[in-house]
Amino acid sequence: MTENFCHLAEFALIERFFTRQTVKNPLTRLGIGDDCALLAVPDGFELAVTTDTMVENVHFFAGADPEQLGHKLLAVNLSDLAAMGAKPVSVMLAITMPSVDEAWLAAFAQGFLALAERYDVDLIGGDTTSGALTLTVQAMGLVPRGQALLRSAARSGDLIYLSGNLGDAGLGLKIRQGYCCAEPDAALARFNMPTPRIETGLALSGVAHACIDISDGLASDLGHILEQSRVGACIDWDALPLSDAVLAYIEATGDWSMPLVAGDDYELCFTVNPDNSARVPAECRKIGVIDEAPGLRLNKSGIIQPLGVKGYEHFS
Amino acid sequence: MTENFCHLAEFALIERFFTRQTVKNPLTRLGIGDDCALLAVPDGFELAVTTDTMVENVHFFAGADPEQLGHKLLAVNLSDLAAMGAKPVSVMLAITMPSVDEAWLAAFAQGFLALAERYDVDLIGGDTTSGALTLTVQAMGLVPRGQALLRSAARSGDLIYLSGNLGDAGLGLKIRQGYCCAEPDAALARFNMPTPRIETGLALSGVAHACIDISDGLASDLGHILEQSRVGACIDWDALPLSDAVLAYIEATGDWSMPLVAGDDYELCFTVNPDNSARVPAECRKIGVIDEAPGLRLNKSGIIQPLGVKGYEHFS
Repeated sequence: MTENFCHLAEFALIERFFTRQTVKNPLTRLGIGDDCALLAVPDGFELAVTTDTMVENVHFFAGADPEQLGHKLLAVNLSDLAAMGAKPVSVMLAITMPSVDEAWLAAFAQGFLALAERYDVDLIGGDTTSGALTLTVQAMGLVPRGQALLRSAARSGDLIYLSGNLGDAGLGLKIRQGYCCAEPDAALARFNMPTPRIETGLALSGVAHACIDISDGLASDLGHILEQSRVGACIDWDALPLSDAVLAYIEATGDWSMPLVAGDDYELCFTVNPDNSARVPAECRKIGVIDEAPGLRLNKSGIIQPLGVKGYEHFS
Repeated sequence: MTENFCHLAEFALIERFFTRQTVKNPLTRLGIGDDCALLAVPDGFELAVTTDTMVENVHFFAGADPEQLGHKLLAVNLSDLAAMGAKPVSVMLAITMPSVDEAWLAAFAQGFLALAERYDVDLIGGDTTSGALTLTVQAMGLVPRGQALLRSAARSGDLIYLSGNLGDAGLGLKIRQGYCCAEPDAALARFNMPTPRIETGLALSGVAHACIDISDGLASDLGHILEQSRVGACIDWDALPLSDAVLAYIEATGDWSMPLVAGDDYELCFTVNPDNSARVPAECRKIGVIDEAPGLRLNKSGIIQPLGVKGYEHFS
């Protein structure tokens, strides 16, 4: 239908803005420019594959900084690889945009490729089409055969850990929506430029049982582990790693459930047999225990109550 | 940002409409339901990876039949694998849609999965988001190491072949736009339900040099081979495989360049050393010759003229 509609030549666009990155990863056998890219997968490894889409006005605000957006789009996909304990190797990028905005593309590519280069990730292909701003990445990584960290692998008695603070990105969103805060920069940075916990994920191989990244909120994402592992869990409020800014937000608003239900932190939540707890990376914090009673519970000030994906209110 | 906007739970949606397909391909180690899918790549093979997006009102008409759309979305991606000589194994699907239309999703999944099952292709993951209707697939396939059919591999003296008729899909689009034709069904089917030439692509391993699929039109797509191989070509008008319906269209309208510049046929165009011509699959037709003079030319009634991506007019 190219004769009737605006057609952005995928070749010209993608090559212009995204091929400053020369092919680096030795597993990339053929990058951008043919019908397909070619990727080598070494013997003894499996390929972990994930895809995430970000849509304007849904996953990011209209007018969002394109460099931060390029970073975040790649980060949320690499975070899924981290959650499997996979080492990222390459990505594909599908951009749908209303018109060719060269300044926007240059900044977006800058943010995307800077993060890609940090992990030796090659952009090996993509597609560029005309329409409402919609960005899809597929990310690929390597994991030793049989060693992937699965949501279904939690066992009763496992300790539950988090790779970093909870709720900072949620606070960043609140600030973006108008909440006033003395020092907004750190929380905004966590919302706009999340860090995929690649190194932590790789360090969990042979250490953790189940693992997931916090994209939709701890209650929701840990809930997936519980469901797929057919176990339950109790989280200890006092053990949650919360920044001073998040504690101040809770103090000011009374909205203590925010860090439990807000998404976008992209920390890893994982479970570990107590015998392996000494091998958990130092930056991680124990926040609870897996048990056999179905569902997710929160122990707050000695009172244990069911915790839903939106906090207490739907359950108590 | 899930708390502010309509959030389609990827789990519920994708699992509901797309997991009727049980994991079949023995290379799929983990399908839908975790942070990543896991794929095995046998020793001696490389993974061919491609992505294509289709946008409503750009690549398909608003209100297009969802079952045909599901077929076509997968077909155009599998066609890229065919053009590398790769055997498809798995796909990821990212759906962005304005709201959850269950009947639409059921029909779309029906068309998509019926084609996937024909080639033992597993749908191993995806994402579902809210926004303007935008559909992205990433397809993965296997090709014996070093055997992929590259656009850069054409050599002067190679014969140029096509795997099937040219211009039927273009005629289908004309009919969709109002052109009246005695027997429209075959052309409409070629436009709405293209066939990825997987078997032909696999049969070309060790036979063809360069290969590409016709998505944007013969002049444009063969042009990519010429550019990347640094060669030229002359196409013989009398040798082009044209259906009676396309010949009747040309007769009626005088628009003889349509089959050369219309896209969506998804036939393979490939080049073969004359010594290998006996090994070319029987359904393929020789349409021209690769030579050293830069550019693409058409020999029509003994007159040789340059051929551009929109036909003669920009060159003569």
